[in-house]
Amino acid sequence: MNSHRKIPKLPGAFAAVMFLALSIHANAQTPALASWNDGPAKQSIVSFVKEVTDRSRTNYVEPQDRIATFDQDGTLWVEHPLYTQAVFALTRVHELAPQHPEWQQREPFKAVLANDRSAMANFSESDWEAILAATHAGMTTEAFQALVKQWLATAKDPRFHQPYTALVYQPMLELMDYLRANGFRTYIVTGGGQEFVRVYSQSVYGVPPEQVVGSSILTKYEYQDGKPVLMREPNVFFIDDNAGKPIGINLFIGKRPYAAFGNSPGDKQMLEWTQAGSGARLMMLVLHDDPVREYAYGPANGLPDTKVGTFTPALYEEAKSKGWDVISMKKDWKRIFSFDK
Amino acid sequence: MNSHRKIPKLPGAFAAVMFLALSIHANAQTPALASWNDGPAKQSIVSFVKEVTDRSRTNYVEPQDRIATFDQDGTLWVEHPLYTQAVFALTRVHELAPQHPEWQQREPFKAVLANDRSAMANFSESDWEAILAATHAGMTTEAFQALVKQWLATAKDPRFHQPYTALVYQPMLELMDYLRANGFRTYIVTGGGQEFVRVYSQSVYGVPPEQVVGSSILTKYEYQDGKPVLMREPNVFFIDDNAGKPIGINLFIGKRPYAAFGNSPGDKQMLEWTQAGSGARLMMLVLHDDPVREYAYGPANGLPDTKVGTFTPALYEEAKSKGWDVISMKKDWKRIFSFDK
Repeated sequence: MNSHRKIPKLPGAFAAVMFLALSIHANAQTPALASWNDGPAKQSIVSFVKEVTDRSRTNYVEPQDRIATFDQDGTLWVEHPLYTQAVFALTRVHELAPQHPEWQQREPFKAVLANDRSAMANFSESDWEAILAATHAGMTTEAFQALVKQWLATAKDPRFHQPYTALVYQPMLELMDYLRANGFRTYIVTGGGQEFVRVYSQSVYGVPPEQVVGSSILTKYEYQDGKPVLMREPNVFFIDDNAGKPIGINLFIGKRPYAAFGNSPGDKQMLEWTQAGSGARLMMLVLHDDPVREYAYGPANGLPDTKVGTFTPALYEEAKSKGWDVISMKKDWKRIFSFDK
Repeated sequence: MNSHRKIPKLPGAFAAVMFLALSIHANAQTPALASWNDGPAKQSIVSFVKEVTDRSRTNYVEPQDRIATFDQDGTLWVEHPLYTQAVFALTRVHELAPQHPEWQQREPFKAVLANDRSAMANFSESDWEAILAATHAGMTTEAFQALVKQWLATAKDPRFHQPYTALVYQPMLELMDYLRANGFRTYIVTGGGQEFVRVYSQSVYGVPPEQVVGSSILTKYEYQDGKPVLMREPNVFFIDDNAGKPIGINLFIGKRPYAAFGNSPGDKQMLEWTQAGSGARLMMLVLHDDPVREYAYGPANGLPDTKVGTFTPALYEEAKSKGWDVISMKKDWKRIFSFDK
């Protein structure tokens, strides 16, 4: 036996490091962005990553500054016809109704309990605030997280007959993986509830709670049986939408993103803020133009600007004029959900 | 030449990994916690770390949950006789005075400009708020950071004749290093200004901006020459002190710390919140009892409870009754500053 072929005894730490190196190699064998068609969107992503990770280029970015921010609803998972968190809130209204007989006569609860879809579609911001206060507050942070977890474990979307957490876009999960494999930290920057999203961010997106920036209500430090708890109060603390997104990014991260992904006017300022930084930046908007596999709304069916939460024709024009990339779900994505054939 | 001694050609990635392994080994040769005397404080730290990092123990903690939070003023660096950020604010009042002739007759500015130390020592919270609004707001976040950076580069502490950033406690830097080497992420959780501390947190403490949780003022998203900026408004947004510390920890990190370090009543709730978690937790308070090398205040010289920002006798009693560890600067620390002989 040739002595060169002997496997030397390695110290433990060194062996662990070798194992790590082999794992990285194994991961590299799965093709990145497998659910993306070869097209302009995929090309933009790959070129950008090459640009900022190649030390020989002037636009090289140090790993600690590689921040990518993702809107959630409509960007990472289905938001149509209703945000998942809104479905949770409406379900809670039904569950809590027996304890609130007055809701049968009081709006907006009356409309919810009567399943009056047209009334619900026209709920004002203060209607939603009343619903959130009634369903998301008056309990500890831990109790709230337990409620969300329990609901997500059983609730299913009526069209796809899947748990809501399965309605994430497979290409976007691959994009997050690809960015992380290239040294990026991926943050969720959502108009939705920060405490809500943190319940499943790690298991669904691989994003730890500390990398979820979202809207929040006030919490109060109290004692229950001598033990400190954080009670959720029925008052808004921070709205992480529109201008709130760059404000939240500065507040929570303190660094400007190099890449930002959204789908609606609420993401406009986040993309602007990202683009205003120096060097190479990637700004992308998801266009919902696939009525067969998902939905078509916004510019794809000429929805007016007034429709809250959707990618409007005006935003589409702005994207074109500013050089933001538009991701066509229909053209750029081979498959949309992991359960798609 | 014996062929066994040949250095084989390694693929680039593998060579990089080997280099990393060698670097880790090199670090391991510097003794951890070198500026700590062998005593109960060091013993508590080492035992706790062993407890939560040993997979065979029931109190083992997964690396992603290893969170350690540090108060800054009086815990990581000198806070006596005045917080560094307050020195910055007072200096700014002097600098801005020519543009504000009315300050000569208006408190609290009049007292600052007259260097009236006894008046300044009795400034109320609203006096300080007026000073902060006048000195910390009305500019973009970037302009503010540049100002802080510039000031820190030249300002010196009158007693030690050192830049303020040199007045960090060497044993606490080693403690942060030791925790990080054991998989912890170290956060600063300060009553001081988040944007202020973020300017130097990486270079001074090895703590990146996104791991600084602090007090903040409102920011507003605006356009200057078509470019988006965040303007600092003269209104408080969040006070990260007392109950604000656990609230801030939940808001920014979303995980309960396993170790927390403070020195004053403002840190009490953070330590309580940490201790209320399950498994092994480490709660420590720095006692300023070394008038020769630093200062003696709080329980060390019987200061009354009313003195804001100091480790009070009441807190000292609470620490003893709750089993929190007290770090005696005099007994537990071999040296206090890196410039000490």
